[in-house]
Amino acid sequence: MSSNSKGVEILSIGTELLLGNIVNTNAQWISEQLSQLGLNHFRQSTVGDNCDRIVKVIQEISKRSNLLITTGGLGPTPDDLTTEAIAKSFNVSLFERPYLWDQIKQKLSNSKLLDDYSSLRKQCFFPKNAQIINNPRGTAPGMIWEPIKGFTILTFPGVPSEMKNMWEETAFEFIKTKFSDSYSFFSNTLKFAGIGESSVAEKINDLLNLKNPTIAPYANLGEFKLRITARAKNEVEANNIIKPVKEKLKKEFSKYIFGEDNDTLPSVLIKELTKRNQTIVFAESCTGGLLSSSLTSISGSSQVFQGSIVSYSNELKNSLLNITEDKLNKYGAVSEEVCEAMAINVKAKLSADWAIAISGIAGPNGGTQEKPVGLVYISIAGPNNHISNIKKIFNSTRNRIEIQTLSVNVCLNSLRLILLSNSK
Amino acid sequence: MSSNSKGVEILSIGTELLLGNIVNTNAQWISEQLSQLGLNHFRQSTVGDNCDRIVKVIQEISKRSNLLITTGGLGPTPDDLTTEAIAKSFNVSLFERPYLWDQIKQKLSNSKLLDDYSSLRKQCFFPKNAQIINNPRGTAPGMIWEPIKGFTILTFPGVPSEMKNMWEETAFEFIKTKFSDSYSFFSNTLKFAGIGESSVAEKINDLLNLKNPTIAPYANLGEFKLRITARAKNEVEANNIIKPVKEKLKKEFSKYIFGEDNDTLPSVLIKELTKRNQTIVFAESCTGGLLSSSLTSISGSSQVFQGSIVSYSNELKNSLLNITEDKLNKYGAVSEEVCEAMAINVKAKLSADWAIAISGIAGPNGGTQEKPVGLVYISIAGPNNHISNIKKIFNSTRNRIEIQTLSVNVCLNSLRLILLSNSK
Repeated sequence: MSSNSKGVEILSIGTELLLGNIVNTNAQWISEQLSQLGLNHFRQSTVGDNCDRIVKVIQEISKRSNLLITTGGLGPTPDDLTTEAIAKSFNVSLFERPYLWDQIKQKLSNSKLLDDYSSLRKQCFFPKNAQIINNPRGTAPGMIWEPIKGFTILTFPGVPSEMKNMWEETAFEFIKTKFSDSYSFFSNTLKFAGIGESSVAEKINDLLNLKNPTIAPYANLGEFKLRITARAKNEVEANNIIKPVKEKLKKEFSKYIFGEDNDTLPSVLIKELTKRNQTIVFAESCTGGLLSSSLTSISGSSQVFQGSIVSYSNELKNSLLNITEDKLNKYGAVSEEVCEAMAINVKAKLSADWAIAISGIAGPNGGTQEKPVGLVYISIAGPNNHISNIKKIFNSTRNRIEIQTLSVNVCLNSLRLILLSNSK
Repeated sequence: MSSNSKGVEILSIGTELLLGNIVNTNAQWISEQLSQLGLNHFRQSTVGDNCDRIVKVIQEISKRSNLLITTGGLGPTPDDLTTEAIAKSFNVSLFERPYLWDQIKQKLSNSKLLDDYSSLRKQCFFPKNAQIINNPRGTAPGMIWEPIKGFTILTFPGVPSEMKNMWEETAFEFIKTKFSDSYSFFSNTLKFAGIGESSVAEKINDLLNLKNPTIAPYANLGEFKLRITARAKNEVEANNIIKPVKEKLKKEFSKYIFGEDNDTLPSVLIKELTKRNQTIVFAESCTGGLLSSSLTSISGSSQVFQGSIVSYSNELKNSLLNITEDKLNKYGAVSEEVCEAMAINVKAKLSADWAIAISGIAGPNGGTQEKPVGLVYISIAGPNNHISNIKKIFNSTRNRIEIQTLSVNVCLNSLRLILLSNSK
């Protein structure tokens, strides 16, 4: 950062955030933008609609940062206090800009929402030397203001669509010119399945300490990814920085890496099956439709996914999937024998190249000593009716939805590995 | 707040938040909890995985607040620094608790994911007088620690399901006892379906300004709820404060209110059908299993849900649901005629009291001028084959998953209304 050795902060203003009424998606969106600009964004704060508290936090920030982005508190109501509080933080007064009032009246002349919009007049008051950020989608303009040398504030409304529009039309270029140096950040993410965060982390301790590129792990339920980020002058240079690390990771974790960036297990599977011109169907019991919906949440899934039978009751396992009562009685619905028959029969009945069947105990009820909650059988039937059977016992601390979600992940990743080994 | 005239803060720790990789839903969830407890939550901060920065912000917070909730940075990787940084903030050392290491080994003994989990050992180190918050769903415990008189820290992992579970099992009671005054906050939430936030808000402007109880609206995709919160000495007093407002809302919005507190549309439907001893099945096209999985995500769904046919391709609409090729060609798969036949046929084939069929265009591709993305047909077949047909056109700005989710909501709410009118 050229003129910016200190860094950038985001301040979100609004009591609704402190009450938990809404999720702060603005902070995430702006963070991503700042990260793309390669800025040193090191801290975020949230305060309510309280003038003294806003003043206090702005004075703190002005001492440690050189760029502050605020969202919220620009509206017409008495608890919209942002501009007023910013001015107070630096002991200056606000002055009306008559042309803004004309603009607001113009904007509202076609609107039938308000009989009396005099309350909006306060949106025309700014410090004398502030530059206005036009708000094409709303009535509340923002400002770019440097109250003291080396500290600049940009204000935005809290409405996400207005904020984003103002950012893209005005703020982005201003920040890029004034605060970005010639370096930008470029990222490439590797996605993992079938391996845990700690197993990966302990094998790449050396890589986690690199400075350029940096490598950051992210974990969520049944998902794990590593983001490789390079600081570089352009994409070519970034790729040269990222490539050797990426190659090393791909070599070390080969089959555990299922994709990059926006890939998901369902999207990768759809891509692989599409490439092979093969179709897939499911017979779901304990996941109750979740496996099907994980695939159909992806646009393009109709290329490979024909449909599925959710046979939740034993009657339907019998009538729709031809599992004999004998078999159900002898082995139980949650058994390798029944699951395998479900896969074979659904594949035949729905005429597909691949079928996955799943039967288990998602809990919290229905578990026994012999068949505990978390026990899941998965059968994958492929071309030539080659069968793969998988038995999983998920940790008993897992709740119902976690067991269902993890089961779906195992289904998708297991088929991915089978396709991978077949293509060799 | 008895021992708490200063207030509560939330500190979210994680570079992924500053990079904008994830939305900070934890801060929203905890804020909602603190607000229910009636605590003076006045500020939130976010910093990255940087020990010096974490130390600095914790020292600041310890001077102005008396309770701090942190999330993130408790994992096994080198950039998980929270406990270490907190200890450093107050110049104390960390000590291993061997029993925690035993617990972690125990938790992982059934798992075959890890060959070597020695990196998890750092999760057993805490300041000497810290109380441990057990983490039933993960390996990283949290702590309750009062490093200096009048300032308490509670730490939680960043994984939302682990954090929420630890909050509910341990933290909630601790905070309630130590930091709430003799007045407590009691909440009762009314859940709405089939009506938007602004339609509700404009009819209850007067109620939104009440001081005790307060009424706060919360909106999310296809969901809307009003939380009525009373400040009272006990539950009886609280109920007396809440009751008149609740009655008024129930009268005004009667059929739009589907439940209270932890009720969801699927849970309400399961309850209603169980009460009637009736069963249900689905034929899903554009929602691809999401309707089924919304029901089966609820424990107890097997009482009423038999199963479903996800007929994604036209071939399966024909072979599994007996929709004639004639009909498919004449009307198209996305039509009232086909959807109604799907409902009637799936009900007969799977022998249930109720059937819901759904066919539409979830997009982003596949839309035409005549049948745009967002067009969805829903048919509900009930006892005596009484049919209800619903046509919806969702806004074209909605993405695929939003259209699928909103469609499922309409299905569930429509059947709820039918059951409601039948029971009169």
